[in-house]
Amino acid sequence: MAKKVLKFGGTSVGSIERIINAAKIVGKEHAKGHKLIVVVSAMAGKTNELIEQSISISKEFDKRELDVLLSSGEQVTCSLISGALRGIGLIAKSWMNWQIPIITEGDHNNARIINMRTEEIDKFLSEGGIAIIPGFQGISKRGDITSIGRGGSDATAVAIAKIFKTDSCEIYTDVDGVYSTDPNKIPVAKKIDKISYQEMLELSSLGAKVMQPSAVQTAMMYDIPLQVRSTFTDRKGTDIINQENIDYSKKVVTGVAYSKDDAKITLIGVQDKPGVAASIFEPFSENQINVDMVIQNVSSDGKTTDLTFTIKRDDLDKTLSILKNNKKVKIKEVNHNTNVSKISIVGAGMVTTPGVSYKMFKALSEEKINILAISTSEIKISIIIDENYTVEAVKKLHKTFDLD
Amino acid sequence: MAKKVLKFGGTSVGSIERIINAAKIVGKEHAKGHKLIVVVSAMAGKTNELIEQSISISKEFDKRELDVLLSSGEQVTCSLISGALRGIGLIAKSWMNWQIPIITEGDHNNARIINMRTEEIDKFLSEGGIAIIPGFQGISKRGDITSIGRGGSDATAVAIAKIFKTDSCEIYTDVDGVYSTDPNKIPVAKKIDKISYQEMLELSSLGAKVMQPSAVQTAMMYDIPLQVRSTFTDRKGTDIINQENIDYSKKVVTGVAYSKDDAKITLIGVQDKPGVAASIFEPFSENQINVDMVIQNVSSDGKTTDLTFTIKRDDLDKTLSILKNNKKVKIKEVNHNTNVSKISIVGAGMVTTPGVSYKMFKALSEEKINILAISTSEIKISIIIDENYTVEAVKKLHKTFDLD
Repeated sequence: MAKKVLKFGGTSVGSIERIINAAKIVGKEHAKGHKLIVVVSAMAGKTNELIEQSISISKEFDKRELDVLLSSGEQVTCSLISGALRGIGLIAKSWMNWQIPIITEGDHNNARIINMRTEEIDKFLSEGGIAIIPGFQGISKRGDITSIGRGGSDATAVAIAKIFKTDSCEIYTDVDGVYSTDPNKIPVAKKIDKISYQEMLELSSLGAKVMQPSAVQTAMMYDIPLQVRSTFTDRKGTDIINQENIDYSKKVVTGVAYSKDDAKITLIGVQDKPGVAASIFEPFSENQINVDMVIQNVSSDGKTTDLTFTIKRDDLDKTLSILKNNKKVKIKEVNHNTNVSKISIVGAGMVTTPGVSYKMFKALSEEKINILAISTSEIKISIIIDENYTVEAVKKLHKTFDLD
Repeated sequence: MAKKVLKFGGTSVGSIERIINAAKIVGKEHAKGHKLIVVVSAMAGKTNELIEQSISISKEFDKRELDVLLSSGEQVTCSLISGALRGIGLIAKSWMNWQIPIITEGDHNNARIINMRTEEIDKFLSEGGIAIIPGFQGISKRGDITSIGRGGSDATAVAIAKIFKTDSCEIYTDVDGVYSTDPNKIPVAKKIDKISYQEMLELSSLGAKVMQPSAVQTAMMYDIPLQVRSTFTDRKGTDIINQENIDYSKKVVTGVAYSKDDAKITLIGVQDKPGVAASIFEPFSENQINVDMVIQNVSSDGKTTDLTFTIKRDDLDKTLSILKNNKKVKIKEVNHNTNVSKISIVGAGMVTTPGVSYKMFKALSEEKINILAISTSEIKISIIIDENYTVEAVKKLHKTFDLD
């Protein structure tokens, strides 16, 4: 008998039928004798619909009122699933953000959960009840409704697991786990049974939309075992757990990720003195341009250096124009590639296995794929290549590292 | 400068455009220097949609959770209109049921407002702010969300007017006031400028859907001047006020109401002893059959009497079958008319004006309309006639009592 958080995402509660289905899953887990706290998202599409309504009223819709608006989405799901559970004879009860309460700090639309009162719900669980809690929201210390950012229901689930000291946290979603690469594009992609928090974080930040990175981070910090699994099949999902509990002797690379729609800019002959990089990147962040990879080579002449970075392709023209108008920095030449993609291999086993990057570069050269830039971290190697070779490169690396 | 409640019904906030329009009305009133508390319903159709969702999950959807579900409707409208007001540069803020709080007592789905905390909102009003409050809902002393029954937003508006001691309470809706009779069927119907609480109550219970009877009753009890007016025109609406402030010297009858789809049952030769009527009607209420008019004549032989009553036509078969199976009461004969309607004239002036009923009966006899049953109160006379003559009778009475 364990104490668990079960979190159902938007598509898992996207219709009345699906809510009834989710209630059945909860019922099965309850029948096993587990104590359950269920966290729900708004029904799929609901949050977007509400945001659109707010925008059609005012493009600068008040942030406090937006949180009041958006929080209604999860409120609806809470009551419906709670009613569905009671409909199948279980003792279920919904708690709203203010009834628990879920205390947050930080700005409207972007708050963080800092605490919850546990006594009442723990008592209810001990009596065999199933507690239903809305994801994505809370209240401020002043008593205003707050929301914790898009996808924040994952963060709520993990915060509950931490604060209520549950044994695990299961994320029910529309995919049956984390894959070694994108299963929609690369048919040989395989579901990963176990992945470490760190690897999951790398994959999330590389575009795997399975879980919110900040939720994974919190789980890692408090060592809360996560499981991502499908609401629509009985198949076991992916465990996201501590690196120590995974055997890396057999597999060096866990997954291959890629992002498309990137562009690469290279600045040649940039003055090599402190503060230059800051002067270059400051106006980007002011203009909401997200810079991804940044690579700076050692200066060859001691006076100037070359700087390469990638951005979303949509931001290319804006970025080039900002660079042109930047009077603070002297740059000899600005080159750019419009169509590039980033390929990354991720694996906690890399740390202890030599020659992984060599193996990666050799595999790509066998396919005659030119590498435009390289960036590495402890458990990840990312390269930039011509976008046309994306699928080919991912397939080759997937095979090279025995993921097929 | 006055302190006012402005209440907007479901159709008045039924779309984004209409919410923006309602915000403009609020803005105009605010510009006149009034202190404003705005009460809103759920967007038109929303409450029904949520109820349907709950029914498709379970026909006996948990009542506590239903209140959680339904209350989300007004929450959405609150935030949207508040955002719209801020969008036009006003200081507006929504308060949820628990933030005020609106304390209720009684059952889920059918609670009554008993108190609210006023200090915070009164302070906000003094600083020029516009307070937005959801209708139809509150919380119980235990801290559960409650709702106060369909159409309960009117009751919320009046309760706020009472508890915040406002000067008036304006009900914005999709009609421009209370009419002398149904303007959809009887084109000569005229908008009434002033009507007493009592007359309004009679008209409401006779089917005029302009305002919730319980809200009118509360307004009467605390002498809160109401005004019903259209959200879509600038025209003055109908004042619902104390009888003392209305001049009845010119007009005896204020309105003519009618209900269709009625059926009439007459029980002939019912045993005339105490408790018989109770024995007859008890099984009806147990079966949710609403009995409307009840007329019992004086017993002619001292042993038996005749009893006539009306019900909704849909309930006729069920009612006849219940009567047949009622072993507690001896009835000689049961007659029924399937197609009847009830016509009522309402007017506080009747009390002091003799001959009103005679004038009514004479007018109908001029049209050769047969009266099947009669029932009177202090300010109302109702008759039952063949349904085919409904419109003819209403028109005749409307003219007879100078309402055209």
